[in-house]
Amino acid sequence: MDLRRGLVIGRYQPFHNGHLEVVSEIMHDQDCQELIIAIGSAQESHTIENPFTAGERILMIDNALKEVKMDNYYLIPIPDINRYSIWVSHVESLVPSIDIVYTNNQLTRRLFTECGYQVKLPKLYDRDKFSGTKIRQLIINDGDWKSLVPLQVAKIIEEIDGVKRLKEIA
Amino acid sequence: MDLRRGLVIGRYQPFHNGHLEVVSEIMHDQDCQELIIAIGSAQESHTIENPFTAGERILMIDNALKEVKMDNYYLIPIPDINRYSIWVSHVESLVPSIDIVYTNNQLTRRLFTECGYQVKLPKLYDRDKFSGTKIRQLIINDGDWKSLVPLQVAKIIEEIDGVKRLKEIA
Amino acid sequence: MDLRRGLVIGRYQPFHNGHLEVVSEIMHDQDCQELIIAIGSAQESHTIENPFTAGERILMIDNALKEVKMDNYYLIPIPDINRYSIWVSHVESLVPSIDIVYTNNQLTRRLFTECGYQVKLPKLYDRDKFSGTKIRQLIINDGDWKSLVPLQVAKIIEEIDGVKRLKEIA
Amino acid sequence: MDLRRGLVIGRYQPFHNGHLEVVSEIMHDQDCQELIIAIGSAQESHTIENPFTAGERILMIDNALKEVKMDNYYLIPIPDINRYSIWVSHVESLVPSIDIVYTNNQLTRRLFTECGYQVKLPKLYDRDKFSGTKIRQLIINDGDWKSLVPLQVAKIIEEIDGVKRLKEIA
Amino acid sequence: MDLRRGLVIGRYQPFHNGHLEVVSEIMHDQDCQELIIAIGSAQESHTIENPFTAGERILMIDNALKEVKMDNYYLIPIPDINRYSIWVSHVESLVPSIDIVYTNNQLTRRLFTECGYQVKLPKLYDRDKFSGTKIRQLIINDGDWKSLVPLQVAKIIEEIDGVKRLKEIA
Amino acid sequence: MDLRRGLVIGRYQPFHNGHLEVVSEIMHDQDCQELIIAIGSAQESHTIENPFTAGERILMIDNALKEVKMDNYYLIPIPDINRYSIWVSHVESLVPSIDIVYTNNQLTRRLFTECGYQVKLPKLYDRDKFSGTKIRQLIINDGDWKSLVPLQVAKIIEEIDGVKRLKEIA
Repeated sequence: MDLRRGLVIGRYQPFHNGHLEVVSEIMHDQDCQELIIAIGSAQESHTIENPFTAGERILMIDNALKEVKMDNYYLIPIPDINRYSIWVSHVESLVPSIDIVYTNNQLTRRLFTECGYQVKLPKLYDRDKFSGTKIRQLIINDGDWKSLVPLQVAKIIEEIDGVKRLKEIA
Repeated sequence: MDLRRGLVIGRYQPFHNGHLEVVSEIMHDQDCQELIIAIGSAQESHTIENPFTAGERILMIDNALKEVKMDNYYLIPIPDINRYSIWVSHVESLVPSIDIVYTNNQLTRRLFTECGYQVKLPKLYDRDKFSGTKIRQLIINDGDWKSLVPLQVAKIIEEIDGVKRLKEIA
Repeated sequence: MDLRRGLVIGRYQPFHNGHLEVVSEIMHDQDCQELIIAIGSAQESHTIENPFTAGERILMIDNALKEVKMDNYYLIPIPDINRYSIWVSHVESLVPSIDIVYTNNQLTRRLFTECGYQVKLPKLYDRDKFSGTKIRQLIINDGDWKSLVPLQVAKIIEEIDGVKRLKEIA
Repeated sequence: MDLRRGLVIGRYQPFHNGHLEVVSEIMHDQDCQELIIAIGSAQESHTIENPFTAGERILMIDNALKEVKMDNYYLIPIPDINRYSIWVSHVESLVPSIDIVYTNNQLTRRLFTECGYQVKLPKLYDRDKFSGTKIRQLIINDGDWKSLVPLQVAKIIEEIDGVKRLKEIA
Repeated sequence: MDLRRGLVIGRYQPFHNGHLEVVSEIMHDQDCQELIIAIGSAQESHTIENPFTAGERILMIDNALKEVKMDNYYLIPIPDINRYSIWVSHVESLVPSIDIVYTNNQLTRRLFTECGYQVKLPKLYDRDKFSGTKIRQLIINDGDWKSLVPLQVAKIIEEIDGVKRLKEIA
Repeated sequence: MDLRRGLVIGRYQPFHNGHLEVVSEIMHDQDCQELIIAIGSAQESHTIENPFTAGERILMIDNALKEVKMDNYYLIPIPDINRYSIWVSHVESLVPSIDIVYTNNQLTRRLFTECGYQVKLPKLYDRDKFSGTKIRQLIINDGDWKSLVPLQVAKIIEEIDGVKRLKEIA
């Protein structure tokens, strides 16, 4: 195959503008013609750290990327496996074959490097501003979270009654 | 949401022209504007019954559907859970919310019906001709399997050396 | 404690008159003042071999035993663990402490004996007549299954629409 | 069925007078003629947070309720499943069908409400006085824990050598 | 490291003279200075197919190999993982690093080859004569099984009362 | 069997001179002619608490013990099971039969004592000096960790690039 395929992984609780920046940047990288967006901790939901189900997160990301006319991506849920020594194999079995991995996470980089993958570090977005933890707190406290996520993400969170869910489990 | 979303589920080992017929038919159903194609037994691979990984199957289906200009579908791997009483919840958590289920499988129909879903029976394709079991046997015996699957599926099976894999594990 | 507690284990798919005979016999055994009725394969349901959930089976047995004025029993679901070497510990952790085990199953006897338990063999009921497999077949084929189970069991199977469930998954 | 069945869920480490108050209150609720007492974290034991096995907790609760002449309850162990999206289905499969849920826990309420159940809030007992955590500390420190639990619970804790167990693992 | 390490894997139910032949042959292979003997299906026991626990099998093999003055081997139990796509990683995490794999099993060869390992085929011993299935049948039927296993293996099977165990579960 | 077999269990992240002291002491205990060294949390690796795989730890311990001419030990990985009520059975199934357990851990002592085992307390080594936590910190901070572990352990940590691994995941 001539198409080079990249992998980026996150929990996306929820998918925010910082995530969107990273995805956009990778989409313009010449090393990557197709992007696999892996949704980590796919089995989690209904907790403060992980309020949204994998299905809800897939919907959010897909709508956000279509809104900005992106294409050529796969959205694939990855349940946790809690054994780092087999985690790369676990991911490999659930996604199309990968040519390159994009991550700023040290452990992810280490694990994929040990398995022989090329790993690139995407430019860091403003982590003080765009942070899942902070956005979930803003949702709970009726703060201005909507400006930090793509329009489509905000819309879906409201449709699935996500604000009330987060407040109740907080 | 105004878009109605349908669910169809299969193991797709491999995705063949019968599967493609079903997907095409659903895509033209007025009750369904978006289709979730759930890939069952996602954890399986390298056996005669389930030779291909979930990632390989995602790649096959995605390429086959793009070839015929389909759009508006989600491809989501579903690992087996082996407890039918919680299986519908398991599926629900991994996919965007569903409005209608398409299946000819009696158990799948029963389980989704017990949970209150509308279930429709897609027209049956020619199961003597299009059958995963039969196609896997043709691959093993150097028969004419390529005419039974979409062009892109045949191409990927060759690229991933799938014929040799099946022959070796047979 | 002075009360001696016995254990009997089965899948009870469904609980039939042969099971009731065994339970009655044990209830009259001087070695046993309280009986733990363990419901095996608790995680199973919606298959031909195991059509009913653990909760449904608990309800059937409880109503059947109350009907005949039995008392002094515990109904406890036991999920399969699929490792015989730890299975006795698994059972022990889920039930009040046991003094004696009643079983005609060779493996169950072997496992509890290896762990130092006294095992008694209940009198065998007529297994040609009372058999879960046979009763499930009679349900599927509209045969006379009702005479083989306690009245309350038949009533509950009808209330939960169990006949239709079995026919659909058959 | 005409009998309405309620569900209450707790870890009961150990079952104390506050729990007994809640159970008594529900038993007098006209909305509930039969009560399922679900024993959560059933797989846990031998830790400071969860010293007693499910079997030991079943024995404690059963003896305590018989002492006050209660009847019409089911005691059912529920192992944790650690995926909230399927947790309600998991409970449903292990217990007889439920008409109403009693809980003051926000998450439990949220999850059962999302699945369409009626949820009632039992009156809160004095949580400063009756608290599992506090009672376990009193047991470890030779404090007066016996006045906080039903007589039968204290008796069983002593019979199973529970005080020594808690002190050793503390 | 200069020492080259080989891997051989089996269920060893029980370890017989055919297995001993293979191990001896590998021990004389110049490509392998240390041998990892992986004991597969380590979680199984007390069934006709897998009567002995992993611990019992370790004891049998260790005593048999010491008897013939072998050295430089590791005996490591490997629980099944039931996902072939991650099975090699699973093995890798439980054993010291491997340089070469010895197997006549097609699937094992395929899986290790896909992960880039050198795989050698040991000479086949007489499988009509030396077969776990056949030896277990001989044990059950009081046949001459002792001549087919190393002396130490026969001794341990008797010490752990293995003949009676097999007969009872048969 | 006349040989008495002892069990000692640890995570050995990494195996240090304090562990070696304990093993040496037990080897000289008349109550124990063979020692099973069980490697706990075998499934863990690549975390700060558990940086090394079970296979790497087996290699370290084996080389360290051979260096000091020890013999008569088994090195067996034990994956966590997270249910203390069945943990002893889990260990028993993976190791040859045990006559005596050596541990200073209160919970391990409690669990094996409840199952009827004789438990001995090995002399405590200097835990301020020899501590896995401290040694891992020294590795991360380029401190003098090598004097705290056997020579062979230091050698293997370097061969597997363990220093870099620990620094990256720290």
